[in-house]
Amino acid sequence: MPLVTVIGDGQLARMMQQAGIELGLTVRLLAGSGAASAAQATADVWLGEYTDEDVVRAVSEGADAVTFDHEHVPNEYLEGLIADGVNVQPQPSALINAQDKLVMRRRMREMGAPVPPFAEILSVSDGEGFWDATDGAVCLKARRGGYDGKGVWFPESREQTASLVAELLEQGVPLMAEKKVRLVRELSAMVARTPSGEIASWPVVESVQADGICYLAVAPAPAETAGQARVIAQAHTLAREVAEELGVTGVLAVELFEAVDEAGQPEIIVNELAMRPHNTGHWTQDGCVTGQFEQHLRAVLDRPLGSTALSSTTTVMANILGDPDADPAMPMAERMDEVWRRFPTAKIHLYGKEWRPRRKIGHVNMSLPCGAAATAENVEKLRISARLASDFLVTATWKDQ
Amino acid sequence: MPLVTVIGDGQLARMMQQAGIELGLTVRLLAGSGAASAAQATADVWLGEYTDEDVVRAVSEGADAVTFDHEHVPNEYLEGLIADGVNVQPQPSALINAQDKLVMRRRMREMGAPVPPFAEILSVSDGEGFWDATDGAVCLKARRGGYDGKGVWFPESREQTASLVAELLEQGVPLMAEKKVRLVRELSAMVARTPSGEIASWPVVESVQADGICYLAVAPAPAETAGQARVIAQAHTLAREVAEELGVTGVLAVELFEAVDEAGQPEIIVNELAMRPHNTGHWTQDGCVTGQFEQHLRAVLDRPLGSTALSSTTTVMANILGDPDADPAMPMAERMDEVWRRFPTAKIHLYGKEWRPRRKIGHVNMSLPCGAAATAENVEKLRISARLASDFLVTATWKDQ
Repeated sequence: MPLVTVIGDGQLARMMQQAGIELGLTVRLLAGSGAASAAQATADVWLGEYTDEDVVRAVSEGADAVTFDHEHVPNEYLEGLIADGVNVQPQPSALINAQDKLVMRRRMREMGAPVPPFAEILSVSDGEGFWDATDGAVCLKARRGGYDGKGVWFPESREQTASLVAELLEQGVPLMAEKKVRLVRELSAMVARTPSGEIASWPVVESVQADGICYLAVAPAPAETAGQARVIAQAHTLAREVAEELGVTGVLAVELFEAVDEAGQPEIIVNELAMRPHNTGHWTQDGCVTGQFEQHLRAVLDRPLGSTALSSTTTVMANILGDPDADPAMPMAERMDEVWRRFPTAKIHLYGKEWRPRRKIGHVNMSLPCGAAATAENVEKLRISARLASDFLVTATWKDQ
Repeated sequence: MPLVTVIGDGQLARMMQQAGIELGLTVRLLAGSGAASAAQATADVWLGEYTDEDVVRAVSEGADAVTFDHEHVPNEYLEGLIADGVNVQPQPSALINAQDKLVMRRRMREMGAPVPPFAEILSVSDGEGFWDATDGAVCLKARRGGYDGKGVWFPESREQTASLVAELLEQGVPLMAEKKVRLVRELSAMVARTPSGEIASWPVVESVQADGICYLAVAPAPAETAGQARVIAQAHTLAREVAEELGVTGVLAVELFEAVDEAGQPEIIVNELAMRPHNTGHWTQDGCVTGQFEQHLRAVLDRPLGSTALSSTTTVMANILGDPDADPAMPMAERMDEVWRRFPTAKIHLYGKEWRPRRKIGHVNMSLPCGAAATAENVEKLRISARLASDFLVTATWKDQ
């Protein structure tokens, strides 16, 4: 049976291991610590740093596929592995688009994908020029390494733009800027693609953010108007096109803004790409036939992909984010019990992580019952239930009581 | 977070580990070998024999619950652990009914559960007497240790009964006999019960056997007549009553015969009890909200039980049993790929076990699509598909081609 090496030890690797068990695969983990989320749950754990090329090379030896739970392995290591015949998926030529936002923006524009006006920012005058060109609608971004709202700034004046750019360039942060959009909501379009080119898509989901961190995903994304239905269909097609155009293998998440154009019509704009299982795909574990972790493993091994048919007309995923102030005195296991008493259908997924403020420590999936239609009322109730459940898991209090 | 010690290293322990990952539990395993099914997939593996009391005691230390993937741990060890304050679930007082068929039969009769005429067989004349009393409808059973058709005999004459009894008693096998039933089909009724007394039931399933080994389970069991609907409802109630009467904790499977009584009406008869996740409950992994492995962990920890609502109107589970003759040349991974190409909704679960004739090495679950009704036609198609898939996984050939 195949061996898959996963570089990375977070919850994504943990859930790949969980999916690998039933496929009869061996998932070998490169973990920074035996206490890491994925290492707790894996038999074949190698301890070491992904920044050490010798370690990456050793853990990859004999693997039928090498894949990742993050985008931070240096591409030159991966190029070296590929040159030696190791099956690395996804490949650096695709991964670069999930690592460097400017490279991605240029590539998206080339392929005709909807992107906001953007520019590389190499100097203070570049920043000022972008401020002028967008009439002050500036979103400044670190080209690399940002996530969960980090590495993104919204300067409020021309002067602030100039000083922020000066400061960041001084720190050696490569920068780009793009025009702020008139955001309605965020969407996420996910697909899996094999090296042979087979593609399977999940329905587009609505992703609700707070302070730059996803806290709710509603699958499929509700369409309240014909315009919304149109942009959802566009997003669905776009994710396939991006996967093909960039040669992505494994799971791809295209994070999108649903915005309003000059004429007041809904439009979509590509925000970010991720080439691995993604937070906005956690609902697939309980809401459709083939979850993203199983699909990722199948895809990187170039095996046939599973059905992405829904097993419920709507599933809502709510993140469990460490309380910003302090972890409640009630132990997590008791909080889970309270949630299960109130919501016996709540599927709680924990990552084996200690509390830290706003850290992702788990998620809850809740689905409409078999046969229930995804009416606005049913979906709204489900959103409320999932939020109540995750809020309780975070704070040990019911927000509606 | 809680620690559960599982004594046993087979596929049931493996799938408990898989379920434990998402609950954030530590599942500690007592395994006979590091290559065992469950050990391959578990981080916290202790190697040792469950027949060694010191080993059982050591691995149980500090556990919030101690449970099993088989019934073979000597009850005196468990009594010792309980005396020392260890939380053993299920307890030996219940387990004895899953270990000793004569004890179970007597207990079932006491509580008014439907059992066939039976007797303890201590001598050849007991055997001959039972032959006479049942007019030759004799099923001879080893009181302990039989499974998958082992430890069960159907003598064809009074003389054969006598010689078989003599031989088995000579070998030191404790025996009982019961009257053969006019079998229509087998059913399985499963529940989970917590030490506090909370009970959750799954729908009763039809279990199809060949040579004493389950190879198909259809959930829920189809009822073609009002009489069948009545006995299915009886079976459903009976499983709850057995769990309560015997004080079972964790998952209980009540294996039943659906037979025809003297008046030609359907009736049910208790066949066996199992106090752990059970082969006829594997469909719950993909066919309802809370699978049996998650539910077992929750139950033995006395935590609230999850919803057993169906996520599909029918799910069929087909076992992958090692081919009786030889393992096909095509590697298992390729067989899986072929099955996935033909049936993208097939959920394949492998146990990491090498081929042996008729060994359980995995199973396949297939469910009706979201919203599809469980019509006789749809269910029949699903049965055929699941059988084709599992037959291919066993033999590398499509039985319909």
